[in-house]
Amino acid sequence: MTEKKLSGAGLRGQSAGETALCTVGKSGSGLTYCGYDVADLAENATFEEVAYLLFNGELPNAKALATYKADLFAMRDLPQALKEVLKLIPKEAHPMDVMRTGCSFLGNLEPENDFSEQNNAANRLLAAFPAIMCYWYKFSHEGLEIDCTSDEASLGGHFLRLLSGKSPSAQHERVMDVSLILYAEHEFNASTFTARVCASTLSDMYSCVTGAIGTLRGPLHGGANEAAMDMIEKFKSPADAKEQMAGMLERKEKIMGFGHAVYSTSDPRNVIIKAWSEKLAAENGDTSLYDISVACEEFMWDSKKLFCNADFFHASTYNYMGIPTKLFTPIFVCSRLTGWAAHVMEQRSNNRIIRPSADYIGAEPRKVQPIAQR
Amino acid sequence: MTEKKLSGAGLRGQSAGETALCTVGKSGSGLTYCGYDVADLAENATFEEVAYLLFNGELPNAKALATYKADLFAMRDLPQALKEVLKLIPKEAHPMDVMRTGCSFLGNLEPENDFSEQNNAANRLLAAFPAIMCYWYKFSHEGLEIDCTSDEASLGGHFLRLLSGKSPSAQHERVMDVSLILYAEHEFNASTFTARVCASTLSDMYSCVTGAIGTLRGPLHGGANEAAMDMIEKFKSPADAKEQMAGMLERKEKIMGFGHAVYSTSDPRNVIIKAWSEKLAAENGDTSLYDISVACEEFMWDSKKLFCNADFFHASTYNYMGIPTKLFTPIFVCSRLTGWAAHVMEQRSNNRIIRPSADYIGAEPRKVQPIAQR
Repeated sequence: MTEKKLSGAGLRGQSAGETALCTVGKSGSGLTYCGYDVADLAENATFEEVAYLLFNGELPNAKALATYKADLFAMRDLPQALKEVLKLIPKEAHPMDVMRTGCSFLGNLEPENDFSEQNNAANRLLAAFPAIMCYWYKFSHEGLEIDCTSDEASLGGHFLRLLSGKSPSAQHERVMDVSLILYAEHEFNASTFTARVCASTLSDMYSCVTGAIGTLRGPLHGGANEAAMDMIEKFKSPADAKEQMAGMLERKEKIMGFGHAVYSTSDPRNVIIKAWSEKLAAENGDTSLYDISVACEEFMWDSKKLFCNADFFHASTYNYMGIPTKLFTPIFVCSRLTGWAAHVMEQRSNNRIIRPSADYIGAEPRKVQPIAQR
Repeated sequence: MTEKKLSGAGLRGQSAGETALCTVGKSGSGLTYCGYDVADLAENATFEEVAYLLFNGELPNAKALATYKADLFAMRDLPQALKEVLKLIPKEAHPMDVMRTGCSFLGNLEPENDFSEQNNAANRLLAAFPAIMCYWYKFSHEGLEIDCTSDEASLGGHFLRLLSGKSPSAQHERVMDVSLILYAEHEFNASTFTARVCASTLSDMYSCVTGAIGTLRGPLHGGANEAAMDMIEKFKSPADAKEQMAGMLERKEKIMGFGHAVYSTSDPRNVIIKAWSEKLAAENGDTSLYDISVACEEFMWDSKKLFCNADFFHASTYNYMGIPTKLFTPIFVCSRLTGWAAHVMEQRSNNRIIRPSADYIGAEPRKVQPIAQR
C-alpha cells in the first residue's frame, strides 16, 4: 500500500506556480533575488534594502530607505500581553515553537484586517521577531525582562544588542546583516510553499508566516547550521575532525551542512559566509573553530565530492559572535520572513487556491459492521 | 508579468502524493474514509470511532473504543499556562487565530518529542480543542473562567456542555457527533495539504496542525457556513430569501455554501445534515430558519443548477443548537484535526520533502546600483 513512487513524489521538479522573486541554481549554482545576484547584494546592500526589494520589487533610494528604516525602528517593541505569553513558555521549549507561537499570538492583537495592510503586517513581524526571540531567551534562561527596544540602526545590530545587552561592533553588525541577506529568500522551498498554500485560501499574513515557521522547524529544512555546530564542537583539531568524519561516513551517519537539493556544483552563499567566518576567527585570535570547519570542508569534498551549503560556515560565524546554538534557526526565521511575506503578496496578486489531488491506495469500498461484530 | 496560467495553476488535478485515507467525488459525488461511505459512518458510527479509524486504518471493536474514549476523556483539561494565554486574547480576536495560537502554545508545554508520540499528540489536541475554543469564548465574551472538564461521554457532548454549561439533549449530542463526522476528512484540500508539506520536513505534529488551522482560516476554505448563516439571518421568509438572492445574483455577489471544487453533481454530506436541520427545526417549533434554507436551496438549483455543499445546512443546524456563528469554523477545526493528523502520520510513513519548483517571470539579471544613483 505504501510502495514508493519516485517520479513526482514530493513534487520534485514540478512547477507549482510562477514567481518574480527568485531564481535558484539556474546555472547550477546561482541565486538571485529580483534579478540581483545574492553575492552582489551581500557586498553592496543591507538587509533592510533586501527586505524592501522583496516586498516592493525594486531597491530603495536613499530617501525611501530612510523612511523604511524609521518605520521598522518604530515597530520593534512588543505588546505587554505578548511578553506575558513568552514568559509562560518554559526554558526547555523548542525555540522554533516559541517563534511560531509569538507570531501566532501577535496576530490576535494586531490582525491584518485586509490585504491593504499586508506590508505593514510583514514589516511588523520583521521588526518584532528579534525581540520575540530574545525576550523569551533572556527571561527563560537568565531571568531577565529585557527592554525590547534599542537605538541600533539596523535589525541585525538590534538583535545582537538585545541578545548581549551591548552595542555590537561594526564588524559584527555587518556580518549579521550579510547573514540575514543570505537566508532571506530561496524560491519554493518547503516553508515558503507552505506560506503560499496558506495564502491561496486568502488567509491572513500571520497565519501564512506561522505555518512557514512550523515547516522550517523540521530537521529536513531548518536546523542544519545547528546540527553542524553540534558536530564541529566535538572535534578537537582539524586532524581530529577528518578522522572522526571518516568514522561517521563509515557508520553512514548523516553529516549536516553539505550538498543541496537544488544546487549541483556549489552553494553561492558558502563562499560569502566562509570569508566572514575567517575574518571573525582572526578577530577572535583563536581560529580553531574556523580551521576545523575548513578541514571538514576539505574532507567532504575529497571523500564525497560534497560542497558546503550556506549552513556550514554559518555555524562558526554565529558562534564567534557569541550566539547560542539554539537561536540559529530562529535567526533563519528573522531573515526568511522576508521571502515568505513576499511570496504571500505575490500569491495574492494572482491567486488560485492550491488544492492538488491524490492517488488513492486505500481500502476498497466496505460497509460499517455493528460494533459487537468487529 | 502576472499573466494567468490556467493549466496547473493551484496544482488543480495534479497528484501530489498517495493516500489511503479518503476518496472524494470518485463517482462525481461520493466521499469515503478508509473505504467507508461517509453516509454509512454518519448513520452507524460515532465521531470517536471515525477518529480511531483515521488514525489506525480500522474501526475499533467495543473494547478498543472504550479504551480510546477513556484516554480522550482523561486529556480534556487545559494546563493553567494555556488558560492564561487564552485570557490574554481579546474578545475581538478572530476565533481561528485563537485556535491557531492555542494549538501552537500547547506545543511548547507538551512537545511531541519523537514520532512514537504522534497518536498521543493528535489525541491530546482532539480532546483539548473544545476547551481551547470554549475557555477563550466564555472568558472573553462572558467573563467566565469555565471548568474545562465535563462528564459528557462524547467529545461532541463535551463541547456543547462547555459552551452552554448544561448537559445537552441526546439529540443535540448526536447531531454534533454527526457534524464532526461529516467534516473529519477530505483528501488533499488546502489545509490538509499544508499539514503534509509541513510534515514532509519531519516537523512536529503541533506545527503541522497549527499551519493547517491557519490555512483553513482563509475565506476560500473554511468559513462558508458562517457566511451562509450571516446571509440566511437577513432573510425574513422563504419568499424574501428568493427575492433577495435574485438581487444578489444580479449584482454578482458571492453566495456561500453552494457548489464545490471537486463534487460535480451533489455534496454527499448535504442530505445528511439537511435531515438533521429539519429535525431540529421541528424540535424548536419555529421552523423558519430551516424553511428559508430550503428556499435558498431551491432557488440556487432552479436559477444556477448549483447544489448545497456540506456547509449550507450546517448553518441552521448549529444555530438551532444555540452555537454562536463565530464558533462555526473553530468546530470545523475540532473535526478536521482528525484528517490533518492522519495525513501527517501517512506522510511520515513514506516521506519525501515536498519542494516543488517555480516558473521564473521576474527581472533579468541586473547589478546593484550605489544608493546615491538610484
